Amino acid sequence: MAQPSYVGGPVQPTTAASTSLIPLGLADACITGGLWAARQRVNREVSIPNGARRLRDAGNLDDLAMAAAGTESQDYRGPVFMDSDVYKWLEAVAWEYAREPSDELAELFATTSGAVAAAQKNDGYLNTYVQVTRGGRERYRDLSSSHELYCMGHLIQAAVAGRRAGLDDTLWKVAIRVADHLVAAFGPDGLRDIDGHPVIEMALVELYRESGDERYLRLAQWFVDARGHGTNRAYGREPIYFSDRVPAVEASSVEGHAVRALYFAAGVCDVAVERGRDGKGYLDAQARQWEHMVDTKTYLTGGLGSRWDGEAFGDPYELPPDVAYCETCAAIGGVQWTWRRLLHTDDVRCADLAERILYNGFLSGTSLSGNEFFYVNTLQVRTGAVPDDHRQPANGRGKWFHVACCPPNVMRTVSSVAAYLATHDPDGLQLHVYANAELGADRRRVSVQTDYPWHGRVTVTVAATDQTEWTLSLRVPSWAESATVRVNDEPAEPADRQTGYVRLRRHWRPADRVVLDLPMPVRLTAADPRVDAVRGARAVERGPVVYALEQVDLPEGVVMEDVEIAAGASDPADWPATRRPDFLDDVVTVTVPLRDRRTGLNFTADAVPYFAWDNRGVGPMRVWIPLASPTT
Amino acid sequence: MAQPSYVGGPVQPTTAASTSLIPLGLADACITGGLWAARQRVNREVSIPNGARRLRDAGNLDDLAMAAAGTESQDYRGPVFMDSDVYKWLEAVAWEYAREPSDELAELFATTSGAVAAAQKNDGYLNTYVQVTRGGRERYRDLSSSHELYCMGHLIQAAVAGRRAGLDDTLWKVAIRVADHLVAAFGPDGLRDIDGHPVIEMALVELYRESGDERYLRLAQWFVDARGHGTNRAYGREPIYFSDRVPAVEASSVEGHAVRALYFAAGVCDVAVERGRDGKGYLDAQARQWEHMVDTKTYLTGGLGSRWDGEAFGDPYELPPDVAYCETCAAIGGVQWTWRRLLHTDDVRCADLAERILYNGFLSGTSLSGNEFFYVNTLQVRTGAVPDDHRQPANGRGKWFHVACCPPNVMRTVSSVAAYLATHDPDGLQLHVYANAELGADRRRVSVQTDYPWHGRVTVTVAATDQTEWTLSLRVPSWAESATVRVNDEPAEPADRQTGYVRLRRHWRPADRVVLDLPMPVRLTAADPRVDAVRGARAVERGPVVYALEQVDLPEGVVMEDVEIAAGASDPADWPATRRPDFLDDVVTVTVPLRDRRTGLNFTADAVPYFAWDNRGVGPMRVWIPLASPTT
Repeated sequence: MAQPSYVGGPVQPTTAASTSLIPLGLADACITGGLWAARQRVNREVSIPNGARRLRDAGNLDDLAMAAAGTESQDYRGPVFMDSDVYKWLEAVAWEYAREPSDELAELFATTSGAVAAAQKNDGYLNTYVQVTRGGRERYRDLSSSHELYCMGHLIQAAVAGRRAGLDDTLWKVAIRVADHLVAAFGPDGLRDIDGHPVIEMALVELYRESGDERYLRLAQWFVDARGHGTNRAYGREPIYFSDRVPAVEASSVEGHAVRALYFAAGVCDVAVERGRDGKGYLDAQARQWEHMVDTKTYLTGGLGSRWDGEAFGDPYELPPDVAYCETCAAIGGVQWTWRRLLHTDDVRCADLAERILYNGFLSGTSLSGNEFFYVNTLQVRTGAVPDDHRQPANGRGKWFHVACCPPNVMRTVSSVAAYLATHDPDGLQLHVYANAELGADRRRVSVQTDYPWHGRVTVTVAATDQTEWTLSLRVPSWAESATVRVNDEPAEPADRQTGYVRLRRHWRPADRVVLDLPMPVRLTAADPRVDAVRGARAVERGPVVYALEQVDLPEGVVMEDVEIAAGASDPADWPATRRPDFLDDVVTVTVPLRDRRTGLNFTADAVPYFAWDNRGVGPMRVWIPLASPTT
Repeated sequence: MAQPSYVGGPVQPTTAASTSLIPLGLADACITGGLWAARQRVNREVSIPNGARRLRDAGNLDDLAMAAAGTESQDYRGPVFMDSDVYKWLEAVAWEYAREPSDELAELFATTSGAVAAAQKNDGYLNTYVQVTRGGRERYRDLSSSHELYCMGHLIQAAVAGRRAGLDDTLWKVAIRVADHLVAAFGPDGLRDIDGHPVIEMALVELYRESGDERYLRLAQWFVDARGHGTNRAYGREPIYFSDRVPAVEASSVEGHAVRALYFAAGVCDVAVERGRDGKGYLDAQARQWEHMVDTKTYLTGGLGSRWDGEAFGDPYELPPDVAYCETCAAIGGVQWTWRRLLHTDDVRCADLAERILYNGFLSGTSLSGNEFFYVNTLQVRTGAVPDDHRQPANGRGKWFHVACCPPNVMRTVSSVAAYLATHDPDGLQLHVYANAELGADRRRVSVQTDYPWHGRVTVTVAATDQTEWTLSLRVPSWAESATVRVNDEPAEPADRQTGYVRLRRHWRPADRVVLDLPMPVRLTAADPRVDAVRGARAVERGPVVYALEQVDLPEGVVMEDVEIAAGASDPADWPATRRPDFLDDVVTVTVPLRDRRTGLNFTADAVPYFAWDNRGVGPMRVWIPLASPTT
């Protein structure tokens, strides 16, 4: 395996950062097969080209062109944050190029970057909505709702991705000028407003990391500290909606609009780990917040944000499966924050949550075909559900949205998903989420072969090593009851259940082979009894995958709402789990013993991975299945 | 008892209408004591005077004054439907005057009517938003969202109330001119748009009933038939939101925005019963709709509309208690429609639902003090709920709202609630909802003495009678298992369980005394097993009253989310029910045997009537209590 030149991924803390683990660069984390390779292929071949067409058809590119021409016009199309869709899509192009360069991708990135650059004002400001609809006057007039910094944040993220991927530097220069403009315009001696939608915080820290310019880090911290004082109000919403009710250092839970809360939390984490001792207060608050989120506000699918009203986190244990919101972007924000916390804490529960989100509530956001998207990831659709507006899950996935934040967000995340598999530190390599991949840092490199998430055997072969003794850490997921590990066919020391990782420290040699076996019996999961909405019901899980029942798999005439788990059903571990390579792009289905409450008849039905539902037409579906019980 | 002159109530079908039952006029239905008398006293002494101040402070009256002055100004205050708050409040004043005349009420009505009249344009048009913000230009430009006909509908309802109450006729003349303007402007040869928010249909039919002018009935039918063809779109909402997805004759459920759907359904019923044979198609559809609503979309409290998103009905069995919406106005719309269906069908289930709504989901909309209101009537508040926007139940009731539809809607309904107690027909009197009252029609009159809803004894004394044989019908609520009835101390024929009414036919004499006994043991109610959100939980009911647990009544240190019904608890019929005259304005509390899941300790707590929750400070509350069960 050749030593590639270093290609940074989406999160690259500085060496001074208070992080325990170091991410692998994208040239050091390559998916080589299996589920994620299939998703990346569809993302590259379908989603990204389709995204280019959608951005043209929806008017995003016209808006840029009008801004570039200096046109003041009421012909601006779409909501105020149209620019951000372009930038997230550009970021996907960049990570895709980093993954596997191509002239087409380089050309797409350069051309679109040129269109962006042409729209930028001389002083660095750039926002097509303000420039087109009011000739650039009254910048930052309604920052609670205008999304000007939000759009700039996504621009900066795309530019950082393009820079790390080694692409044309037009966008990078635009981003630097944007950031310099912000440094001049905002802060104690300038504007003291904050954007109603965070993301600028993460973006500025990454720009600092890539450029070394500390002014960007200081401005990010300014934005973090300016938040939480109740200054944001728009759309009839209170400050809580904008994560603006309590300062970051005092936060004890996640609340308000979920995507805003999660992007902000990720940005706070970025700022905090780069601020050394100054960061401690933030990180202590984040520990409380994250624990509270995981304990009381996270769906089984990893979905985040239960309320349609305000696309918001609900109260503790308010996790209704039927009216779940679980925006696709919130799943992505959840991975972003949780990954940053993993780097800081080395806490296996962060990897557990990241895996849960990635394989379930995130992946459900896209069709297997790659050209349809869920904005809302419900856990239940009922018989008789009447399709309503475009976001209603009963409508199935949509091809694009008026508010199109989710589709390009999926694209950039799938393109860069390899960044979330493993880390390194001076002591060795840590494997967190399993996939067929080549992973490594410097001279310590491994190759992973696995059928994950369908089979729990993970074979890790040492591809390269230095002469030192180092530790290969393999995560044992919280769902794995009795993991075993062998090194070169010899049983190795048992899993370190304290930390959730098997840690193997030795002088590794090329071709050394570690086999981790994670048994994957079918599990029937009960929720915390305080989650009222799923009392008396169970969910089917296997390995990291949550399952769902779809109407299409029930016998004819059986109504979904009459289905319960058969009384006296056998041990779930004995329920058949069947690998079906030609079904839903290759999945394992689970055969569940059920009963029709209305007729009293028992039957079985195959549950499918939750992420793969609604790929054969939309219809009634449920993750939580009632227990047959006299108490129902 | 003197024979009062006839005073029509809110719903007065013509003699030609296809209704089985005839409402009593408001002078023929007088509440004389008990719970409703107390609510009416507070409504008269606190809510209505307070409403006058709020309408002044919120700008509703300034908007009228600006319109009267012909001012074009950006100083218009409040949402586009500010006028309707004034009209609903005027309607309350009128019904209050009908109930008990006073110079102050007559003066209030006359003065405010004058302010309304002054704002009317020469051709009858009246809408302060359009007149003030754009000088009256572009009338009906955005009828999906402008609420112009909605405001006019409430104006007409207030005018009809004023006319029936014998008040100053200024408003009546305004209403006639409004309606004549509408007849000229809308219809097959005019504008074909419909208002995004129904109410004009009900209003025009009542105006027809009061005036005898059939053009108003025909226009109401035009508006009914014009709806359901998918022409309404606003706020990014689809036609379903506006009850505009399917025509009234094809409807099979209630859907979309709950208040819109219920007001429209009531209007359809009004039109249909007045159209003779032409009305059958509508009424057949309404039967399906109403049944489907009662079976699948109605909360235990009678609350209607489960979704915050779009303030809408959810899918069948989507009835989450924690994120219930149950707008106070929807409870009122539910009573309005259900009462009209009772008149048409003579179906006891309509009276059952009206009673359920009135004593629970409607009454909860107001504080006992009469000056605070719930917009949203949740069935559960959790520990740790963070107050958010003004509608969040965790904030407790509010003093008024930016969108202030609910408070004056409560006022007009409390003022006229006696209209919903009883009916007559040529064969006699029918008593549907019990209260201390004097009730009658023509020479057949009774006096009702009862402690309802706290005690199930209802004593009906004949106050006057004609010389014919007639039938006194007494409803046996669906919750009453073993009603008994005695006439002049002799056991009478048993309840006619077919129709849900005890029907006593005889030659009545003054002072004849009927005693109906409805046993009221405490009941523990289970929901339909298809209502996922309350599986494994039970609700406490007694008589027509639904109970709730409030945190303030739990032992110190017990967290609401850890509370369950004690395993092996005694028969609910044996749980103590205690009359407490000095508590919450005189209620019965129920002592419930409970268990703390966390500590395993058993304890008891007093549940309070749901409608009386949040009168001792807001906090955690729940109607559905988990069963202690190994399956939770």
